[in-house]
Amino acid sequence: MSVEPLVPETKVLAIASHVVYGRVGNTMAAFVMQTLGCEVAALNTVHYSNHLGYRQSKGTKTSADDISDLYVGLKQSYLTDFDIMLTGYAPNAKAVDAIGAIGRDLKLKASTKPGSFFWVLDPVMGDEGRIYVDEDVIPAYRGLLRDADLILPNQFELELLSEIEIRSTLDLTKAITKLHQDYRVPHIVVTSVRFDPLSPFISIVGSTSCADGSPRLFKVDVPAIDCFFSGTGDMFAALTVVRLREAVSNEGLFASKAWQSPDETDALELPLAKAVEKVLGSMHVILQKTKVARDAELEKMSGPQGAIEKDSEKRVHLRKTKAAEVRLVRNLRDLGEPAICHQAQALTKTESWNPARLPQPKGGTA
Amino acid sequence: MSVEPLVPETKVLAIASHVVYGRVGNTMAAFVMQTLGCEVAALNTVHYSNHLGYRQSKGTKTSADDISDLYVGLKQSYLTDFDIMLTGYAPNAKAVDAIGAIGRDLKLKASTKPGSFFWVLDPVMGDEGRIYVDEDVIPAYRGLLRDADLILPNQFELELLSEIEIRSTLDLTKAITKLHQDYRVPHIVVTSVRFDPLSPFISIVGSTSCADGSPRLFKVDVPAIDCFFSGTGDMFAALTVVRLREAVSNEGLFASKAWQSPDETDALELPLAKAVEKVLGSMHVILQKTKVARDAELEKMSGPQGAIEKDSEKRVHLRKTKAAEVRLVRNLRDLGEPAICHQAQALTKTESWNPARLPQPKGGTA
Repeated sequence: MSVEPLVPETKVLAIASHVVYGRVGNTMAAFVMQTLGCEVAALNTVHYSNHLGYRQSKGTKTSADDISDLYVGLKQSYLTDFDIMLTGYAPNAKAVDAIGAIGRDLKLKASTKPGSFFWVLDPVMGDEGRIYVDEDVIPAYRGLLRDADLILPNQFELELLSEIEIRSTLDLTKAITKLHQDYRVPHIVVTSVRFDPLSPFISIVGSTSCADGSPRLFKVDVPAIDCFFSGTGDMFAALTVVRLREAVSNEGLFASKAWQSPDETDALELPLAKAVEKVLGSMHVILQKTKVARDAELEKMSGPQGAIEKDSEKRVHLRKTKAAEVRLVRNLRDLGEPAICHQAQALTKTESWNPARLPQPKGGTA
Repeated sequence: MSVEPLVPETKVLAIASHVVYGRVGNTMAAFVMQTLGCEVAALNTVHYSNHLGYRQSKGTKTSADDISDLYVGLKQSYLTDFDIMLTGYAPNAKAVDAIGAIGRDLKLKASTKPGSFFWVLDPVMGDEGRIYVDEDVIPAYRGLLRDADLILPNQFELELLSEIEIRSTLDLTKAITKLHQDYRVPHIVVTSVRFDPLSPFISIVGSTSCADGSPRLFKVDVPAIDCFFSGTGDMFAALTVVRLREAVSNEGLFASKAWQSPDETDALELPLAKAVEKVLGSMHVILQKTKVARDAELEKMSGPQGAIEKDSEKRVHLRKTKAAEVRLVRNLRDLGEPAICHQAQALTKTESWNPARLPQPKGGTA
């Protein structure tokens, strides 16, 4: 990793889950941001033994009252001088509301100094058509949108927030525009877009709105990796915090409201686009390395006698899930100095987007 | 920091406190070990807003049952393949007992492969004559000593464990020897020894026992820094885990029971001595930088009008405590590549140790 921190001094309040074993929630996000030079205060919304991909887990949830109480604890000792808040998984609507109250309080405190506080909201609700939180979390998240500066939904979560079914680029554009205009969300990144489940690529689509709420859309295509990883959303969010802070610092935009670029800035020149390019470079390399290590581990387990096949289905699932935990601590250099960089492309608002016509990404491998 | 990990692949179970803001317990220890390449599973014994040095805090304790339950969660998904366990602050005797049961279970699992599991126990009870846990924690910790491989008491905690009052090198030697012989603790480091409170030096004294239980004593003197830091014990413990793993790896001792060197190895050649030298190099540099940053911050706060003096005593205490939080994330290089190294010296068992006769440490600054 790089020796000098990428960002100016940065204090982040990170509200997300904690697991003892493995890398999801704050166990991923707080570590990534700290490794890249941010001072992170991690407020954990659950305390589980492991992530839910294992299909079994022990532990406790932090109640909404306890979340609020921890924040009161910070306030009473004057420990809330945060530049950025990153919020992720909350187990129920009450917890989402408690997090919303914290975000609003921090915004209020910073209201006389535009750009001095920035809220990155990852509205964790589900993926690929499946909701994994209580249903009342959806309206609770809609209630937070007006105060967030950047939101990071995946395609499914964007559908839930915008109430627009997304089957095409046109739908996607409509949904993003709706959030820019109806909820005044300044920055949006849709963290995984795929219209054809067989496509070898996933697209990441972002936009920073103009003053009138119209979008400035860009997309980055990355090769899909044939492996189910957990915690990649948290990794994306954490890297985006750092890389956006870096890009906004380079552009001198810290005193602009919500770090918004002037209208004349082109989509591809947005700090958000530059940030996402670097984020995906780091992620692709680390996930590739994880995939290679996972395959080697499963190969070793199956052995010459194919021992793994004799195990119960449950045991095999546990082995595979463990083997796919993101390999982070041995690959820290890739966080700070991604070897490859995926280039952003402009996405015109009405482009008919057919995955078959996607350009080949530069330097990527499937 | 160094680009290549210092240690071979290492999985650590770290059981300690968690605070949202600041660096103590796992918020310090887990981060340090991960940054240096260890995969760390952090099981948090409390969830507080901030450390108790602020004299006020909000949050909850993890009950002994919840600690045990999280471990059951790990076991049921086969996630307990730990090489090392580091245990720190536990709020009461029941929690200490729950941690003990985890340690014993992991030892039992590893009993057919000597050296494949190593337990570093930091018996957090108090400092400088003041106990800050329930009184029944003391016998609970004595009950764990027989299973620990390395313990890290400070001078006061060593007194509590050994029931020997320590006023001289002779007392210290007796106390260490007692733990080696009566409890069969293979490795001991006393993390701060000072007989004269006005001495400009603090000594760190360590020993790895010979087969007959006799000690091999070494000490390292470091200049005392005139500032109260929190979390330094956790920082010491985490760095010791990494540096001992590194030194033992270099010596090829992983298959020896409790990583014990053969009797002919001299005190100054012990992996433990080599580890402590490097640990103190990193700590001294980072604490010096923290002190400089703290002084600058307090200076800035007091300003030309001496504003800080107008604050209430409580507010001044909160400011000072916050300013003294260890500056870690901007100084990661010092963890991996300490610029200075403090040299260990042999400590003969009956040496009359007068701080006034201490040699000047090499390269250190007061």
